[in-house]
Amino acid sequence: MVKQERAVRTRKSLIDAAAAVFAEEGYVPSSLATISKRAGVSSGALHFHFENKKALAQAVEEAATDVIHELVRLSGSASTSALQALVDATHRLVACLSDDIVVRAGFDLSAERALGADAGLVQTWQAWVEETLHRAEAEGHLAPGVSPDVAAAAVVAVTVGIEVLAGGDPQWLAERRIAGFWELLLPGLAPEHVLVSALPRSG
Amino acid sequence: MVKQERAVRTRKSLIDAAAAVFAEEGYVPSSLATISKRAGVSSGALHFHFENKKALAQAVEEAATDVIHELVRLSGSASTSALQALVDATHRLVACLSDDIVVRAGFDLSAERALGADAGLVQTWQAWVEETLHRAEAEGHLAPGVSPDVAAAAVVAVTVGIEVLAGGDPQWLAERRIAGFWELLLPGLAPEHVLVSALPRSG
Repeated sequence: MVKQERAVRTRKSLIDAAAAVFAEEGYVPSSLATISKRAGVSSGALHFHFENKKALAQAVEEAATDVIHELVRLSGSASTSALQALVDATHRLVACLSDDIVVRAGFDLSAERALGADAGLVQTWQAWVEETLHRAEAEGHLAPGVSPDVAAAAVVAVTVGIEVLAGGDPQWLAERRIAGFWELLLPGLAPEHVLVSALPRSG
Repeated sequence: MVKQERAVRTRKSLIDAAAAVFAEEGYVPSSLATISKRAGVSSGALHFHFENKKALAQAVEEAATDVIHELVRLSGSASTSALQALVDATHRLVACLSDDIVVRAGFDLSAERALGADAGLVQTWQAWVEETLHRAEAEGHLAPGVSPDVAAAAVVAVTVGIEVLAGGDPQWLAERRIAGFWELLLPGLAPEHVLVSALPRSG
C-alpha cells in the first residue's frame, strides 16, 4: 500500500516536472534527463512510469483535461444560467492558467498540436463552450440572430489567444482582461433583459 | 546588376523555404539542411546570406512585419473611419495568414517567442490595434465606458487565437469566422448611431 502510494506520488511529480520543463523550454527541445532531474527521480524510475517523452506529454495533457472537466462541472453547478456558467468558466480557466503549470503546459501542447491530431484539451474546451452556448440559446439567453457556434468560436479564440500571449507577458492572465472581454461581448451576445455578470458569480 | 538580382532572389527563396519548414515542423526541430534543400540552394549559399537559423527566423519575422505594415496602411487609407479600418485590417490579416506562409510563420515565431523578447510582429500588430482604437475613441465611435485598451486586448487575443487554432484546422481562417466575431463585438463596442460593417468595406 505504501509502495503504491509512493508510485502515485512519483508519477505525479514526473507529470509536474514535465509540465514545468515543457512550459519553460517548449516540448520539442525538452529532454527526459532534465525532467527526471527536475522531479528528483532516477531515469529508471521515469522509464518505469513513461515509455517516452510523448507518453509523458500525453499524461500532462490528460491531467490538464481532468482539471478542465472539473472546472466546467463546478461552473455549471454554481451558476444560475448557461451564459453565466460560461463567463464563470472562462474566469476559472484564466485563474488555472495562471496558477497551475500542468494546465498551462497542457494547453500549449494541445494548441501547438505537439501530439498530433489526437490531442484533445482544446477540443474538450471548445466542445463544452459550444454545448453551453446551445443551452443558453435554448434558455432564450442569446440575442436574436446570434449563432451559438459563431459565439463559441469567438470565446475559444480569445481564450487560446490569451494563453499564448501570456507566455510572453503574464499580464494577459489578469482578471480584468477577461472581464473586459465579456463587458464588450455581452451586449451583442445576450438580449437586454438577460442579466449576466462579466465577473464570476461565485469564487 | 544581374548578380545582385540573383542574390535578392536567392535570399527571398531562402526566407520562403524557411517559413514553410518552420510552419510544418516548428522552429526548434527545423534544420538548415532541410531549408537549403527546400530552397534549392547550396548550404554555402545559405550561410552567405544567413549566419544561423536565428538570423533566418529574424528575416522571416521581418518580412512578415513588412506585410503587416503594408496591410494596416492599406486598411487605413481605404476606410472611412478608424473602426472600419480596424475591421478591414483583421479581414486582411486573416486572408494573409491563409495565403502567405511567411506571415503565418512570422506570427508563429512571434507568438511562441522563439526569438525571445525582441521579437516584434505581434507587438507591431498590437500597437497598431491600440492606436486605431484610440483614434476611434477620438472620432466619437466608441460606446460610452469602452476602454480602447480593453477592446484592443480582445481583438489581439482573437487574432492570435485564430492563427494558433488554424494550425490544426484551416477552417479557423474562413472569412465568416472573423465577420462573426465583429457582428458579436460591434454592438458593445460602438454606439448605435455609428455604422460599421463587419465585412471589409473594400477588397
